[in-house]
Amino acid sequence: MPTPIEYADASAAVRAVYDDIKQSRNVPDVNNFWKYLAHDPVTLKRTWESIKEIMAPGALDPLTKEMVYLAVSVTNGCGYCIASHSAAARKAGMTEAMFGELMAVTGMANETNRLVNGYRVPIDAAYQT
Amino acid sequence: MPTPIEYADASAAVRAVYDDIKQSRNVPDVNNFWKYLAHDPVTLKRTWESIKEIMAPGALDPLTKEMVYLAVSVTNGCGYCIASHSAAARKAGMTEAMFGELMAVTGMANETNRLVNGYRVPIDAAYQT
Amino acid sequence: MPTPIEYADASAAVRAVYDDIKQSRNVPDVNNFWKYLAHDPVTLKRTWESIKEIMAPGALDPLTKEMVYLAVSVTNGCGYCIASHSAAARKAGMTEAMFGELMAVTGMANETNRLVNGYRVPIDAAYQT
Amino acid sequence: MPTPIEYADASAAVRAVYDDIKQSRNVPDVNNFWKYLAHDPVTLKRTWESIKEIMAPGALDPLTKEMVYLAVSVTNGCGYCIASHSAAARKAGMTEAMFGELMAVTGMANETNRLVNGYRVPIDAAYQT
Amino acid sequence: MPTPIEYADASAAVRAVYDDIKQSRNVPDVNNFWKYLAHDPVTLKRTWESIKEIMAPGALDPLTKEMVYLAVSVTNGCGYCIASHSAAARKAGMTEAMFGELMAVTGMANETNRLVNGYRVPIDAAYQT
Amino acid sequence: MPTPIEYADASAAVRAVYDDIKQSRNVPDVNNFWKYLAHDPVTLKRTWESIKEIMAPGALDPLTKEMVYLAVSVTNGCGYCIASHSAAARKAGMTEAMFGELMAVTGMANETNRLVNGYRVPIDAAYQT
Repeated sequence: MPTPIEYADASAAVRAVYDDIKQSRNVPDVNNFWKYLAHDPVTLKRTWESIKEIMAPGALDPLTKEMVYLAVSVTNGCGYCIASHSAAARKAGMTEAMFGELMAVTGMANETNRLVNGYRVPIDAAYQT
Repeated sequence: MPTPIEYADASAAVRAVYDDIKQSRNVPDVNNFWKYLAHDPVTLKRTWESIKEIMAPGALDPLTKEMVYLAVSVTNGCGYCIASHSAAARKAGMTEAMFGELMAVTGMANETNRLVNGYRVPIDAAYQT
Repeated sequence: MPTPIEYADASAAVRAVYDDIKQSRNVPDVNNFWKYLAHDPVTLKRTWESIKEIMAPGALDPLTKEMVYLAVSVTNGCGYCIASHSAAARKAGMTEAMFGELMAVTGMANETNRLVNGYRVPIDAAYQT
Repeated sequence: MPTPIEYADASAAVRAVYDDIKQSRNVPDVNNFWKYLAHDPVTLKRTWESIKEIMAPGALDPLTKEMVYLAVSVTNGCGYCIASHSAAARKAGMTEAMFGELMAVTGMANETNRLVNGYRVPIDAAYQT
Repeated sequence: MPTPIEYADASAAVRAVYDDIKQSRNVPDVNNFWKYLAHDPVTLKRTWESIKEIMAPGALDPLTKEMVYLAVSVTNGCGYCIASHSAAARKAGMTEAMFGELMAVTGMANETNRLVNGYRVPIDAAYQT
Repeated sequence: MPTPIEYADASAAVRAVYDDIKQSRNVPDVNNFWKYLAHDPVTLKRTWESIKEIMAPGALDPLTKEMVYLAVSVTNGCGYCIASHSAAARKAGMTEAMFGELMAVTGMANETNRLVNGYRVPIDAAYQT
């Protein structure tokens, strides 16, 4: 069973990623996701650099991005991801009311996705253009 | 195979829902989703009233809600829903750049959800409180 | 791209399965699922024998089984499976009203599954026994 | 992390829903799902009223509806939902033999959904009408 | 809640399956999956015989098959299956480096599957033949 | 609705990625996935570089990687991905017999994942270490 790789036991390549995460996020330690991914330093580095690029402020603000991340994780039923991205979204400003509405939208989307499947609804001509 | 129920052929109960959708959204006709769901007037009414309540402006604005709806639909692979909610999100103000970032976040969330599963990452104590 | 294997072009092993399907279901020809699966006669035979055993009347009647099959296919978004099991369920007696309620339950289950995920609801002690 | 809202700590709006659930189901207390959803009284009320409407006896009996709910929850891998709807289905009359067959159908549907995907099976003309 | 059925408490039909699993895999006891499935001896027998046939060496070697099984289980988020098939894959020869690459491929496939959905990419003519 | 961006209409940044794909894969043109992703040059570049790194020969050979990619795409029901990775796997050496076994394993994994969920099988102590 995988185990976490702590900073003290990490290779230089892994430490470099940990350092960048800690500095970018201004946190004293990285969370478990990174400590497990560290078993594969190539994937660790690529995943961190991808996330850093994707989650940076852009056309969408970081809070919106975290809420989208949470909605996807809830849809997929990833317990760890729901816990960590709930925390991240709250840290980015998600209020209890926003969380409630986010869950309502996520739940309803999952419902109507299946109603559409079951009723075999064809795409309207207006959506084809 | 299900077929759409047009306004001219609809019962009074179905027409009442169609009328409310058209008025609320300021559109000349309802889209196929509603015309197929109309085979079950009870589900049609409940689904419309739920969506009307959920998608109204609140702690989250309508654009954010539409983008979350789209992210969930993309995760589930519902073709109709992707088409209709892409259109709705664009109508609510989603730019090409916002769409690009939305897809990037949605894609990455689906990736890291599985990395977490595979590495069997336990939830950090900090996320348990 | 795979192609269907028609009876005239099938091996003796494949024909034996086709014959059993046609006789068991009292149909003049097998549907496309079997004609594609016939590319792997071992999987064809195992799948048919499994389905024949599973879908036979038992503690659950064939109509209930077909409706469950449809609910799963709708949840997974398998277009072919939705089409074929809708037809099978109707043949087994599913009325329009039953289909409507089946979709309503399937849709709601998909919604509350996600609400549970998002709110991180712990299992009640009463359900642990 | 979300926490349950007990009756004693609930608002009047939440208590009204709890009371209706307890009366409708003839149970002394509501289960955790509702106690967590109570953080969003609007979603609590809408979800309960939807479920009450959907799960009532109709063209399908309550036991069939609970088994479909369970099959969907099993397909989605929602642990809480599997626990609570297994209990509800047993209470509604699901025997051990019925559970076994329900799981067999659910499992096989998940298998053949993927065989169909992989073999890219086109929908038979007979299913298009 | 289901409980495991140990060999000492098992029927002759269940013991026969347990014996075959133990002999085929050269293990002193069957794992929990079989002990729970034993509540339905018909499903136990059919599932074991199917797995025995499917996982035998053929055009694909057992290690490749176990890694595919793991990739699917990771995609679906089945905790038990991830644990048991990680163990089986390691027993069949999967190294840490192979596991890392397997997770990288699985993660990326889950990401690009959604990018394809979101961008509504049509199938190239070259893939239709 | 998104449209493909052909080489002649592409920016320098997009052309650079197209050129690298064509050279790396020794193909005269890129497939639709890249032509649609080109609407977001940042995501195009990051996705290509990630895939190039992940799919390169390593502890796993390219054929095994393509088959895992296909198994995941089949599990998720991504039609485009199934078509493109079937083609890629065949090009890398997947025979008809290998495809048949790959589908058999993928289908069975999807089935037993759900049997495990439904029977609520706890992880064996042996898998915890």
